[in-house]
Amino acid sequence: MKSKKHNSLKFKIHEIIFEADTPAGKFFDVALLIFIIASVVVALIESVPSLHNRFPNLFYIFEWIFTIFFTIEYILRLYSTLKPIKYAMSFYGIIDLLAILPKYISIFFAGTNSLIVIRALRLLRIFRIFKMVTFVREAEVISQALYKSSRKILVFLFAILMIVVIVGSIMYLVEGGVNPDFDSIPRSIYWAIVTLTTVGYGDISPNTSFGQFIAAFVMILGYAVIAVPTGIVTNELMNPKKVQVNTQCCMHCSRSGHDDDATFCKYCGNLINGE
Amino acid sequence: MKSKKHNSLKFKIHEIIFEADTPAGKFFDVALLIFIIASVVVALIESVPSLHNRFPNLFYIFEWIFTIFFTIEYILRLYSTLKPIKYAMSFYGIIDLLAILPKYISIFFAGTNSLIVIRALRLLRIFRIFKMVTFVREAEVISQALYKSSRKILVFLFAILMIVVIVGSIMYLVEGGVNPDFDSIPRSIYWAIVTLTTVGYGDISPNTSFGQFIAAFVMILGYAVIAVPTGIVTNELMNPKKVQVNTQCCMHCSRSGHDDDATFCKYCGNLINGE
Amino acid sequence: MKSKKHNSLKFKIHEIIFEADTPAGKFFDVALLIFIIASVVVALIESVPSLHNRFPNLFYIFEWIFTIFFTIEYILRLYSTLKPIKYAMSFYGIIDLLAILPKYISIFFAGTNSLIVIRALRLLRIFRIFKMVTFVREAEVISQALYKSSRKILVFLFAILMIVVIVGSIMYLVEGGVNPDFDSIPRSIYWAIVTLTTVGYGDISPNTSFGQFIAAFVMILGYAVIAVPTGIVTNELMNPKKVQVNTQCCMHCSRSGHDDDATFCKYCGNLINGE
Amino acid sequence: MKSKKHNSLKFKIHEIIFEADTPAGKFFDVALLIFIIASVVVALIESVPSLHNRFPNLFYIFEWIFTIFFTIEYILRLYSTLKPIKYAMSFYGIIDLLAILPKYISIFFAGTNSLIVIRALRLLRIFRIFKMVTFVREAEVISQALYKSSRKILVFLFAILMIVVIVGSIMYLVEGGVNPDFDSIPRSIYWAIVTLTTVGYGDISPNTSFGQFIAAFVMILGYAVIAVPTGIVTNELMNPKKVQVNTQCCMHCSRSGHDDDATFCKYCGNLINGE
Repeated sequence: MKSKKHNSLKFKIHEIIFEADTPAGKFFDVALLIFIIASVVVALIESVPSLHNRFPNLFYIFEWIFTIFFTIEYILRLYSTLKPIKYAMSFYGIIDLLAILPKYISIFFAGTNSLIVIRALRLLRIFRIFKMVTFVREAEVISQALYKSSRKILVFLFAILMIVVIVGSIMYLVEGGVNPDFDSIPRSIYWAIVTLTTVGYGDISPNTSFGQFIAAFVMILGYAVIAVPTGIVTNELMNPKKVQVNTQCCMHCSRSGHDDDATFCKYCGNLINGE
Repeated sequence: MKSKKHNSLKFKIHEIIFEADTPAGKFFDVALLIFIIASVVVALIESVPSLHNRFPNLFYIFEWIFTIFFTIEYILRLYSTLKPIKYAMSFYGIIDLLAILPKYISIFFAGTNSLIVIRALRLLRIFRIFKMVTFVREAEVISQALYKSSRKILVFLFAILMIVVIVGSIMYLVEGGVNPDFDSIPRSIYWAIVTLTTVGYGDISPNTSFGQFIAAFVMILGYAVIAVPTGIVTNELMNPKKVQVNTQCCMHCSRSGHDDDATFCKYCGNLINGE
Repeated sequence: MKSKKHNSLKFKIHEIIFEADTPAGKFFDVALLIFIIASVVVALIESVPSLHNRFPNLFYIFEWIFTIFFTIEYILRLYSTLKPIKYAMSFYGIIDLLAILPKYISIFFAGTNSLIVIRALRLLRIFRIFKMVTFVREAEVISQALYKSSRKILVFLFAILMIVVIVGSIMYLVEGGVNPDFDSIPRSIYWAIVTLTTVGYGDISPNTSFGQFIAAFVMILGYAVIAVPTGIVTNELMNPKKVQVNTQCCMHCSRSGHDDDATFCKYCGNLINGE
Repeated sequence: MKSKKHNSLKFKIHEIIFEADTPAGKFFDVALLIFIIASVVVALIESVPSLHNRFPNLFYIFEWIFTIFFTIEYILRLYSTLKPIKYAMSFYGIIDLLAILPKYISIFFAGTNSLIVIRALRLLRIFRIFKMVTFVREAEVISQALYKSSRKILVFLFAILMIVVIVGSIMYLVEGGVNPDFDSIPRSIYWAIVTLTTVGYGDISPNTSFGQFIAAFVMILGYAVIAVPTGIVTNELMNPKKVQVNTQCCMHCSRSGHDDDATFCKYCGNLINGE
């Protein structure tokens, strides 16, 4: 479909990095995917103290290899695209930059005490993983259903927020003086969220009979209320599109919107496909 | 749409406070919203002991500013509306009053030992937050679906109540003598609710093999039973209205039920809107 | 609708106890309901040690009053109905008997050590509460949807059972030697149920990295699998009946199954309502 | 339906073992089912230390009886089928083999220290239980709905994976230095899964205010996000097939898509089945 007009180096790089039609482009995409996963795995493993202490240099080398590879890739993307600013400002452009920045920042701010903060910035590289979603087409249907139902879900989340604020405040009054777990409203709200969402850590739990009664009420509420987002999303998933199904158009009155098996126009009464 | 007949002060205040059509009205509503959120946040933060002790006067001043502002607003609402009694008795009228009352009551009952109770009453101001729901239109669809399915959900909650009473009693028998956690039926019912709703704090958990067997049964029951409210709400959300879509009625045979884009009557074949 | 032929005492009692058409019958039903709830509440409260020790005689008297009332009611039911055996064998007949039996059994087996067992039997009176469900009509729709989907739900529960047996066994192998929480397969299966149903007590939790990996897998599985019973019940609730919508029947060929707005018969082509 | 051509021993065994049409075949299937359940129950009970130590020989004998029975059955299956390789490579063939292999392997590797490993292999016999699913027909509808929605569910699981990796990393940064529970990213990811799926063990829980804020966010996210798989599966269950219902085709215009009870073609008006 794509007409190759100018066969310059810029175009070739673009074809390899941005597209996946050619064997080279496909190979690049697969290799990039493996590199992204590997870099995430290395970041995860490095955080385990016992492993980090055994091979400190290994992780250091690996991290720099990944960073340099991703940096070259980022520069090539900027070079090969016709609109580098647009790419740099796009969702993936920003993620690509965030994936390499933390490592470079860690050079300049390499104090011993700020080491943890540097490690934190490096973790953002994980966002690269977002690229992998694009490989699956079905994601569009789900994300569109979520997008359509986003307003309803926001209303639902707002109602949840109000419930947990009120329940948390009531619980602070009921348990506050007796139970050290409920020593402030924000902490009581945290408990209300833990309970309403049926997570139930058990790190904070009511002691008094009345507190347990309210807790039981919140649990059953949360148990019943979960039906709301489910109903909303199910509804959107079942009515994914209300677009026109066919392209039938009357020859006489030029209007569309006919059933698939209609022969006569429902607007003017003539044969749809001419006489 | 609204014809401005008498342009008195009363009317102007009404327009600003109750409506959001004019720039002043819109500004007032947004400002009120910010004030409500701020007063809630202050109430939340104040309850944290460490913060409360550091700036005791700051919170005291802020709380009074909010209370006086909301009091003036409440008086102006009563003054500007034509039916003050109706407003005072309405849902929002009561909430508006509840939002300011606690602070005034705290003046008269300011004993050292009843201080916690006073704080408790003050928390009711949070109910003001309810106003924010009205900003979102989608809430109506959800609340209507919940209202329509309220009878089914009540039946479901009643069944849940019976299950937890019976399961709690059985568990009291099984674990009661062995496990101090199950020392009374109400406490066992509390455990049953915690388990059935899949919250699972873990503060009360069965020790005996038979107790764990029953617990496992209750868990799976709760896991399967959650499908019921979900099914009910989904059902209502998917069939939101069964009213007639349009009011088209054939001039010749006087029958309705036509599509929105129909020109000819599907019963007698004549033009729907007369000849 | 009901023709009163023989106005005997038997009939009058039947009318009062079994029916709710007359004022006396309605009064009896409401009074019975209050008595059932009261007897349940007394049974619940009695089990709380602190309350039980304070008023031991009070509960003793109340329990006998309830038991005698329910016994008289049970005898009158047997007497007034035309088919006493059928009633005694029916669902409610058995529940009515179970509600009074435990108290009488507790007389004969009143040893000090078997006291707990007696208390256990008495708890079965709670089953009387089942009667209350019949007051709500909506319960039928839900129970019918559950009944229709019972075979699918059984298959689902069977699959869940298999998953927890296998997962529990694997977990016993992985954690068994290291973690005393997983010292037997049944206990590991109990953990698997607690995890899969997202209850998560936390009384048993994996220690090893591999055990936590499997646990994470089970959690996500349980999180996704909950969709199955929800889908099944929603499906049944949305298609409650597939009965014929209208009673249109062609005058010429006497066949039905026409659309609501059909004028001509789709089988013979004549006017449905005669010529 | 099945024509019995050669009535050899081989055929008879095949009829008994593989089929359930004859009384002997039915008896064998039921007996096999009981044996499978019994062997699973024995494996479960044996793992309980207190029971294992009381009757060590009993379990030893039972296990060998089951193993020998299943071995004979496996050999007969291989003998009686016309395509033994195909059976051995099939899903049930592999499961049948896995059900007997562990016990034999335990003979050769009977060192004292590797005893736990041997027990592990033996547990795989539980997979035999899979056979029981085939008894229920409804399983097909559910499994087909799951199969159809498998791509959507994979996308969903992938999104969940990304969320827990990112949330776990953020949590490691926030809580890592303060809370020993969050000492590595993999452990933080484990916590994120426990929280997002609303399991909530409570073995790992945030201490800092900001950590609890993020935790609350993850809980509400998990609470809302559960709607997605539910919506997907419900959608598939409600639209089980979109195949053409009948094969009616008009003799005159050769078009299909008619209702089951249609006699006249809806496209050309002639009789569908010719004149």
